[in-house]
Amino acid sequence: MLRNILVRSTGSNFKFAGRYMKSSALLGYYRRVNYYSTKIQTRLTSENYPDVHRDPRFKKLTSDDLNYFKSILSEQEILRASESEDLSFYNEDWMRKYKGQSKLVLRPKSVEKVSLILNYCNDEKIAVVPQGGNTGLVGGSVPIFDELILSLANLNKIRDFDPVSGILKCDAGVILENANNYVMEQNYMFPLDLGAKGSCHVGGVVATNAGGLRLLRYGSLHGSVLGLEVVMPNGQIVNSMHSMRKDNTGYDLKQLFIGSEGTIGIITGVSILTVPKPKAFNVSYLSVESFEDVQKVFVRARQELSEILSAFEFMDAKSQVLAKSQLKDAAFPLEDEHPFYILIETSGSNKDHDDSKLETFLENVMEEGIVTDGVVAQDETELQNLWKWREMIPEASQANGGVYKYDVSLPLKDLYSLVEATNARLSEAELVGDSPKPVVGAIGYGHVGDGNLHLNVAVREYNKNIEKTLEPFVYEFVSSKHGSVSAEHGLGFQKKNYIGYSKSPEEVKMMKDLKVHYDPNGILNPYKYI
Amino acid sequence: MLRNILVRSTGSNFKFAGRYMKSSALLGYYRRVNYYSTKIQTRLTSENYPDVHRDPRFKKLTSDDLNYFKSILSEQEILRASESEDLSFYNEDWMRKYKGQSKLVLRPKSVEKVSLILNYCNDEKIAVVPQGGNTGLVGGSVPIFDELILSLANLNKIRDFDPVSGILKCDAGVILENANNYVMEQNYMFPLDLGAKGSCHVGGVVATNAGGLRLLRYGSLHGSVLGLEVVMPNGQIVNSMHSMRKDNTGYDLKQLFIGSEGTIGIITGVSILTVPKPKAFNVSYLSVESFEDVQKVFVRARQELSEILSAFEFMDAKSQVLAKSQLKDAAFPLEDEHPFYILIETSGSNKDHDDSKLETFLENVMEEGIVTDGVVAQDETELQNLWKWREMIPEASQANGGVYKYDVSLPLKDLYSLVEATNARLSEAELVGDSPKPVVGAIGYGHVGDGNLHLNVAVREYNKNIEKTLEPFVYEFVSSKHGSVSAEHGLGFQKKNYIGYSKSPEEVKMMKDLKVHYDPNGILNPYKYI
Ligand SMILES: Cc1cc2nc3c(=O)[nH]c(=O)nc-3n(C[C@H](O)[C@H](O)[C@H](O)COP(=O)(O)OP(=O)(O)OC[C@H]3O[C@@H](n4cnc5c(N)ncnc54)[C@H](O)[C@@H]3O)c2cc1C
Ligand SMILES: Cc1cc2nc3c(=O)[nH]c(=O)nc-3n(C[C@H](O)[C@H](O)[C@H](O)COP(=O)(O)OP(=O)(O)OC[C@H]3O[C@@H](n4cnc5c(N)ncnc54)[C@H](O)[C@@H]3O)c2cc1C
Repeated sequence: MLRNILVRSTGSNFKFAGRYMKSSALLGYYRRVNYYSTKIQTRLTSENYPDVHRDPRFKKLTSDDLNYFKSILSEQEILRASESEDLSFYNEDWMRKYKGQSKLVLRPKSVEKVSLILNYCNDEKIAVVPQGGNTGLVGGSVPIFDELILSLANLNKIRDFDPVSGILKCDAGVILENANNYVMEQNYMFPLDLGAKGSCHVGGVVATNAGGLRLLRYGSLHGSVLGLEVVMPNGQIVNSMHSMRKDNTGYDLKQLFIGSEGTIGIITGVSILTVPKPKAFNVSYLSVESFEDVQKVFVRARQELSEILSAFEFMDAKSQVLAKSQLKDAAFPLEDEHPFYILIETSGSNKDHDDSKLETFLENVMEEGIVTDGVVAQDETELQNLWKWREMIPEASQANGGVYKYDVSLPLKDLYSLVEATNARLSEAELVGDSPKPVVGAIGYGHVGDGNLHLNVAVREYNKNIEKTLEPFVYEFVSSKHGSVSAEHGLGFQKKNYIGYSKSPEEVKMMKDLKVHYDPNGILNPYKYI
Repeated sequence: MLRNILVRSTGSNFKFAGRYMKSSALLGYYRRVNYYSTKIQTRLTSENYPDVHRDPRFKKLTSDDLNYFKSILSEQEILRASESEDLSFYNEDWMRKYKGQSKLVLRPKSVEKVSLILNYCNDEKIAVVPQGGNTGLVGGSVPIFDELILSLANLNKIRDFDPVSGILKCDAGVILENANNYVMEQNYMFPLDLGAKGSCHVGGVVATNAGGLRLLRYGSLHGSVLGLEVVMPNGQIVNSMHSMRKDNTGYDLKQLFIGSEGTIGIITGVSILTVPKPKAFNVSYLSVESFEDVQKVFVRARQELSEILSAFEFMDAKSQVLAKSQLKDAAFPLEDEHPFYILIETSGSNKDHDDSKLETFLENVMEEGIVTDGVVAQDETELQNLWKWREMIPEASQANGGVYKYDVSLPLKDLYSLVEATNARLSEAELVGDSPKPVVGAIGYGHVGDGNLHLNVAVREYNKNIEKTLEPFVYEFVSSKHGSVSAEHGLGFQKKNYIGYSKSPEEVKMMKDLKVHYDPNGILNPYKYI
């Protein structure tokens, strides 16, 4: 029905993308077979950044330390580097951009063990990197030197779910997709979704304050996380696993740990408000001829789709060319190529009402000529396929070797100009082109509904020249528009030195004070964040 | 149309409440004419609580201090106690329960002046009470002894509004209703609403992390506040007035100030994400025969009304009898009396769709006999009138003299048992009955959708005997159910000693450490909070 209307207003034909595996499944697969490592050899971070030096305050692990860990942990909870095992799964990040040299990974199975480990490391001044699903994009989850890796992967139990309130309590190491599937069975949904869901942890998304695809609708984790259980650097367990939607008794301590990227405490448990599972989803894929029109469509969508609008993503032409190179057999959803594409998702409790709202909205924007072409998914398969054109971009951007990723907040009107300015700069530096030029190109896409741009620079190799062309250029651009140099991915190792582009010296000072306040020995995730 | 359906399913007639002034207008009126003070004489807090002593560390104001303030402030920015002016508007709280003895109120007109004042007070160890609209319900906004009152009332400008993103930036002293009216004109709405909106400040609601009537739909201020400008106890201005929906660059410092009740900094500016103004509102007033049925209706409403459900309030029979005593000429919305009433509000972008969802929902719950009677407002006037039966309760509860207010979070199933237990206990203590018995009765109502109960004990006078019967009884009850002793009103003076019923010793310790960290001289809002 909707399809007919669209055909009427645009005169174009409608095709639908073919079938693919779920992106998260793909992601898991890639990781397991080390897909990228065949194309690019990750160099040690310490070699790439010779200016960063190992802090001599931190103790080098001894056999005594190992014996202590053996005394409190079982064999399966300890992984040691050996000739056959270089622990690269834990030492290298998802982008294969950062590589540490840890010789020891601990995977404790209880909160008490996390506490014992930290207490010991704090006393002995052993540096520790907390690690979730290791899907972070700023090099925060892997060591720089020989830091001990404390993986939360074995803390992976659902603790409790209340079907009346929708409050979920779980261990930090539960994989996001598992948590979501669990509550979906009880007619609820996790308030956050992202491409890495098949690998990332609930604790990891809280530690990074991940945003993702549903933020537009359900808000940030600062609103939906109700309680946390945290082990402090000295091993103290702070149990704040509250299950109340409202609780105004004192400073809201848990907020500090949301987005603290493992620098002041290890999150071991999460209590979170999930949302009622929508009964109906619609996805529509549209083309527009300018970024100005992207903005117009957004303002209209927010007014007309209002409470059922659950995602508003934009993708530029190049990002879809890249996606196409991965989605090989798939037919592109639209007839022709266009400068910009928009993916709109609605979700609600009544399919007829949602269809009618979307229909009216699309009729309006097409009749006014703001949207030039478009399709609406007619069933679940088509819906998944349309999403692929958005979700495949992160992987596609690094299929040629690597990717420099910038994830920024900008005023909507300036959002795309960063991509244009970056391409211009890379061309000027004569870095872009076919092989052997190192750069494939800069593309832009992202959660435009949140003022959040993902600028991805697809490269054939990581090298200093590219990095210097991009940084601090990108950060200076963002700062000049009063944006944020990290909308959602965080600071990690990559942006440690760039926080000043988004925060004032007073704010940075206050943050450093807090770090010292909670982690006086600085053992947690050193060389990163602030 | 809807009306007919209801008539069909219940057989009852439908009447609608008459016209009233907006509750906030009434509120302003009451305050100005000191309505309650004719009935009850507020005693000094220091007399009521002889165990609380003035901290000798704090300096008593001298003429030098006054001269300094005169040197930086204009005459209109300084209010001094005199024979004709006892500053009772600033010294007494909204409930007329707490009364301080401040001799000096400063009402600075700029952030820089706030900074100068605090810097001076910190150096001189002069205790300061930040005050917004003075509508707080826990005695947090008035002095206990001779603390200087720093009122934000003159910092009352809208700074900026962006109609594309819906982000509002304003001074802390803007009255909530003014802020809301301002954005309403541009098709947005403040994400928070409460009965005190005609008097309370935007900064005040942030300082208390107020919840209110729309939390169910738009979430807490921890999610919607994007930035704050804060003056620290030493006078340092921290400008964090960001206007980005997403910003993951470092610890989210602003979160600490949300709900900090003026104890670690003075909020002078607020940046907040407003929400698109709904195009359609519906309000329905229903009766059910048990609190179990209240819960059943809630679960159903969340499933069936889902994204358009914007308020779910319950009121017990006694609360409506009290409201009736204030809403004198108004016809009660329903034919008969019932043990419990529910007010449901929906808001959305399409009136027809909303009507149809509400209709189906009401048909279902009435056919199943869960709801026994009900009306739906047919126009804006009726809608306002139905809301009155909920919004009049706070005022009505204290129309006999005073009110002991408890605002707790409890698991839904235990929510009402606290009201029953409290009434039983008051009866046992032979405190309830017609005058001269001091207690009129305990009533229960509130934001049941958030697990939040307002327990109001209406009294003819404040006295120690009542207080001892209620406290710590109420807090012990809440603690035994793992609830919160303050869902939204905060700790203030009233609950300073009761935080231990909701938070662990580790958490309280961490909070006390933060207080010392930010306010080493303890000048901000002493004798309160933690
Ligand atoms: C394909 C893909 C798509 C993505 N899409 C998005 C997106 O849309 N939005 C978005 O915001 N992000 C996105 N990300 C990045 C995002 O930050 C991560 O996917 C996720 O939040 C990290 O979770 P993790 O469990 O993998 O954490 P890790 O990568 O293991 O760790 C991330 C950081 O948190 C710390 N940490 C992890 N667990 C804990 C813990 N329990 N306690 C304390 N500290 C801890 C680590 O030390 C590290 O600093 C994407 C990543 C990928 C690979
Ligand atoms: C009729 C009525 C209905 C109410 N309904 C609700 C409700 O539904 N939900 C709810 O949560 N609350 C409700 N309240 C209480 C609520 O806490 C207040 O109305 C409001 O949040 C306080 O705002 P205010 O500006 O009056 O602050 P005040 O009462 O002046 O101050 C409250 C506290 O915040 C501090 N403070 C105030 N301004 C600042 C500032 N700029 N910087 C630092 N500290 C500051 C004060 O020191 C004090 O500790 C209601 C109150 C009334 C009278």
